[in-house]
Amino acid sequence: MMIATFSNARTTLACAHKGYTEGFNTAFRGGSVMGYALCSLGVFVLWVLLTFYRKVYPEADDWEILFDCAAGYGLGGSTVAMFGRVGGGIYTKAADVGADLVGKVVAGLDEDDPNNPATIADNVGDNVGDIAGMGADLFGSFAESTCAALVIAAAAVEGSNNTLSAAGWDAMLFPVAISAAGIVICILCGFFATNISPVKVEADIEKVLKIQMVLTAILMLPVIYYLAVLLLPEHFRLEGVRLTESGHQAKIHGSPFKAFICATMGCVGGLIIGLVTEYFTSHSFIPTRELASACKFGTAVNIIQGLALGYKSCIVPVFVLSSAIFVSFQLCDLYGIALAALGMLATLSCGLTIDGFGPISDNAGGIAEMALFNPEVRRRTDALDAAGNTTAAIGKGFAIGSAALVSLALYGAFVIRLRVKTGVNILEPTTFAFLIIGCMIPYWFAALTMKSVGKAAGEMVAEVQRQFSMKDSKGKTLLTGSTELKPDSKTCIQISTQASIREMVAPACLVILSPLAAGTFFGIQAAFGLLTGSLGSSVQLAISMSNSGGAWDNCKKFIKNGFSDDVELRYTKNPQTEEEKKAAPKAKEAHDAAVQGDTVGDPFKDTSGPALNIVMKLQAIVSLVFAAYFAAINHGHGLIQVQ
Amino acid sequence: MMIATFSNARTTLACAHKGYTEGFNTAFRGGSVMGYALCSLGVFVLWVLLTFYRKVYPEADDWEILFDCAAGYGLGGSTVAMFGRVGGGIYTKAADVGADLVGKVVAGLDEDDPNNPATIADNVGDNVGDIAGMGADLFGSFAESTCAALVIAAAAVEGSNNTLSAAGWDAMLFPVAISAAGIVICILCGFFATNISPVKVEADIEKVLKIQMVLTAILMLPVIYYLAVLLLPEHFRLEGVRLTESGHQAKIHGSPFKAFICATMGCVGGLIIGLVTEYFTSHSFIPTRELASACKFGTAVNIIQGLALGYKSCIVPVFVLSSAIFVSFQLCDLYGIALAALGMLATLSCGLTIDGFGPISDNAGGIAEMALFNPEVRRRTDALDAAGNTTAAIGKGFAIGSAALVSLALYGAFVIRLRVKTGVNILEPTTFAFLIIGCMIPYWFAALTMKSVGKAAGEMVAEVQRQFSMKDSKGKTLLTGSTELKPDSKTCIQISTQASIREMVAPACLVILSPLAAGTFFGIQAAFGLLTGSLGSSVQLAISMSNSGGAWDNCKKFIKNGFSDDVELRYTKNPQTEEEKKAAPKAKEAHDAAVQGDTVGDPFKDTSGPALNIVMKLQAIVSLVFAAYFAAINHGHGLIQVQ
Repeated sequence: MMIATFSNARTTLACAHKGYTEGFNTAFRGGSVMGYALCSLGVFVLWVLLTFYRKVYPEADDWEILFDCAAGYGLGGSTVAMFGRVGGGIYTKAADVGADLVGKVVAGLDEDDPNNPATIADNVGDNVGDIAGMGADLFGSFAESTCAALVIAAAAVEGSNNTLSAAGWDAMLFPVAISAAGIVICILCGFFATNISPVKVEADIEKVLKIQMVLTAILMLPVIYYLAVLLLPEHFRLEGVRLTESGHQAKIHGSPFKAFICATMGCVGGLIIGLVTEYFTSHSFIPTRELASACKFGTAVNIIQGLALGYKSCIVPVFVLSSAIFVSFQLCDLYGIALAALGMLATLSCGLTIDGFGPISDNAGGIAEMALFNPEVRRRTDALDAAGNTTAAIGKGFAIGSAALVSLALYGAFVIRLRVKTGVNILEPTTFAFLIIGCMIPYWFAALTMKSVGKAAGEMVAEVQRQFSMKDSKGKTLLTGSTELKPDSKTCIQISTQASIREMVAPACLVILSPLAAGTFFGIQAAFGLLTGSLGSSVQLAISMSNSGGAWDNCKKFIKNGFSDDVELRYTKNPQTEEEKKAAPKAKEAHDAAVQGDTVGDPFKDTSGPALNIVMKLQAIVSLVFAAYFAAINHGHGLIQVQ
Repeated sequence: MMIATFSNARTTLACAHKGYTEGFNTAFRGGSVMGYALCSLGVFVLWVLLTFYRKVYPEADDWEILFDCAAGYGLGGSTVAMFGRVGGGIYTKAADVGADLVGKVVAGLDEDDPNNPATIADNVGDNVGDIAGMGADLFGSFAESTCAALVIAAAAVEGSNNTLSAAGWDAMLFPVAISAAGIVICILCGFFATNISPVKVEADIEKVLKIQMVLTAILMLPVIYYLAVLLLPEHFRLEGVRLTESGHQAKIHGSPFKAFICATMGCVGGLIIGLVTEYFTSHSFIPTRELASACKFGTAVNIIQGLALGYKSCIVPVFVLSSAIFVSFQLCDLYGIALAALGMLATLSCGLTIDGFGPISDNAGGIAEMALFNPEVRRRTDALDAAGNTTAAIGKGFAIGSAALVSLALYGAFVIRLRVKTGVNILEPTTFAFLIIGCMIPYWFAALTMKSVGKAAGEMVAEVQRQFSMKDSKGKTLLTGSTELKPDSKTCIQISTQASIREMVAPACLVILSPLAAGTFFGIQAAFGLLTGSLGSSVQLAISMSNSGGAWDNCKKFIKNGFSDDVELRYTKNPQTEEEKKAAPKAKEAHDAAVQGDTVGDPFKDTSGPALNIVMKLQAIVSLVFAAYFAAINHGHGLIQVQ
């Protein structure tokens, strides 16, 4: 976050002095340094932790202690991510919605106007939510998928010597090696974007970021294959959760090639999800342009079509996800799912780079506006920001996809840890009842977080209005050019901070306590049902909310920046031609409808939507960490079938 | 539908002449006659069908043929419901949104203005969607739950003589008897509403309808108990889908008391879901009033809070549903689920009465407006309509809850028909992959239907604009008082009809073909996963969409009719007091925000939301009807575990 914030100022200065190439490179480097730092730290700490435990408990029987430690590491990651995503999401949107409602809509100020005391809180919020939240979220995914892979790999297969844990240290470290190799690939590809094919004009920005994404994914594949052949034994056996036709547990036979295919499904799947997300949220493509046309019929039609767009955008990602699940589950059972998750996260530092790009440019624009830089600088940062918006949506799609795989892997690790031999029969009273409840959890969570944003934004509005109505000794207010009064940003930041911490309690309790309560009072089958339902339902709600929000935001940018061929969708404050003057009232109407859509989209894409990642992952990792506890309390009474 | 339409005119006249009591009673009787007719027809045809087959195939072994016939009956009901709900939903909202967008928003006409050519289509649409669609939907649920109960009851339990099919004809007819008794109870309670405690003033309307609902549910309970003791054997055994701890199928021991408890869970559960729905959508309670306050901050805040309200309104109904599933599944396995569904549907004719009430009053208002009746008549029909809106939301909650139970019962009947002995293990590659796809189906379906409404409404707008721009020989248009031109309602009706039939194809194919495709190409485990996911996800989306829509509609009525204590939320065209005049611009703003919310809510509550009932039920019944086909094609290759 520090690095990102520092980059803002540098991006602004770069834009001011030299133009797109320098501005892009600085913002890109800012994002990528954050990505590399985070990933390296994750890999390094995990490696140290594993090596340390390996030295202290050298017997093979002690693998379990090791993996409890890895699970704890994952839980830590996800809990911090909870703070980052949920708290950060409430922080940033309270500030953003609050600043917009009173500043833009009521007082008619520009975005990031220095006289609006909520502006600084808004800019800080971009860092808190999009940088710290996203980083913590993806870091948690990375830690958890490694943890799931380790737990599954170490599970003992009775009467077999060729397991992964028996194959030794190298085989166990394969998941960590994928992530480590990913960092190197991303650094190499980074040079391509900044040095070999730099951004020259505005249109290049999105293209270069996209090439970056595709290139890392393609280069990753041979590296994964090489690592699999190098580290994994030629044949190995795994304990799975699948059942054979006679109702017994199937033993899975793995091989390096199968492991490679699993990781590839994740890596390529992530890429496809990213590209589909771009298609639905970038204003270079039909869906968002159609949404812009819908704005001509007013706010209601914009909202209806935007929601439909979000729902529709689930289709392909869900098919991609379920193909990845089907293939990797079929080949290597749950170990395959964990590898698919790791494959998707292998290009994590590239994802973080691209994701960090947007908020850095957004903040740079804020600094340019507040420091009263030349408008050309603001135009450049705006162009960087628009591309950043799309890439942020890509990052979110990527984060959701990997979260789904990670939660399934953790869920599987939980089932394996409990040694449930009969599978999870969904047609059990407890399991099915809790499946329905699980499907409802994301809705409950979204209701809580959206309500929180509304409440916190209301407090922000009241504070900004209070400051606007204050008069100085000459009877002038902040907006009528008072020289004595200064906007009091500190109070606004305090409001956002306090609101985010206070409002985070209820959603966090819901997520952490629900699997514990289900497992404690209704048995492990209840926890299984809850995890299944919550996973299935969260994926859809998260994708649709993020993409609706992203599309509304870019639809507004499309109209506001006058990119359309349709003169009625080209909003401009000073219409020039006769044609523009005639269309101006209609364009204003469409613009207003788009602004309303964007405001609805704010909590969708930055609070509730991406925070649902955490719902899936945190519920699963909490269950896994408490697996031993569940087994202990449930053995007494006959509710469950653990053997 | 004919009866309902006829009632409109009578309601109007009654309102015109005598006031609330007569108006209420006529609308109420119109709805209830429809309810009784539909339910009686359903029970009667089913009884004839069963008796006929019983005569033709007297051997016990031929039960299966009988139940294939019952399943066919259910499929027929649901397919018609598909036409009613989806086609009707598109029909009504194309007309409604189209009429509003061009009539109210652009031309500034009142609702139901006779000069608006889309008005008649809008009024016809109320009947098509809310009367025919709702009736067909609930009729389908009734037919299917009876069918599921029969299939499960007839499934042979090896080596046991005390099964329900062995107990004879009476025991098999128990589900039909519940429904038949329900009709009698509802007729008795109807007298209470119209004769014993009639509506005197406006405030009575909602109260009387609510008492009606509670009363039928309470009176139903002893009747169900009596029927269970009379018809069911003292002890009976059922084949279930649950597994014992050793992984074998559990045999369920049933009793009349257990059967009574199952039906009671449904009956009382339906009542609670209805009351919760009322709490969230009626403007007599906090949630909708809070939503009205949110309108002060503009459209975006109204939309955000309305969506959050819908999400939140899932919590209690889902807990109620899962309790009903848990208890009845535990007591009588899937037979219990089918009984719970029948218990919920026992008060069906009361539900249909209450549900028909709204559109009848709405249409009556339309006739009053078009026939230029005294404004007092319109005020009375408006009051009836406002209460009808809330009760329609109750009816929808009720329909969704019963659809969920029905689909689960059908899903169970499907599993039993296939004789799958190992349960449905969710941790299978195919099953889990299709679970995620199943969770996505409702989103896909909602995207299709919402898009269809948008498209059809666009056509309607174009046609109305064409008619408004036509000039007669004196150069006058429809809106500037032309005496020659008449609004051409016929073309508008044609547009709605054609659009609804055309746009219904894609969603219908999605719902019917998805389980067939999954089962054919990926095996029965895929169909299981798909049904599980789709059921869990549809319930949430359906409840949240219906309730968001209902709340937005009533929030608008709350502001428009000036019910609020807050002067800024009391919208009036002719402000009287000084205070009202000062607040008028703010009230206008809040009203406009509420209107936008209502327009967004239209496809939510009348097209996509309730149509999701059909998604759940139709997918399950299609699977059940094709069970023999699935079994035949899947036995060859080893994808599935059917034994």
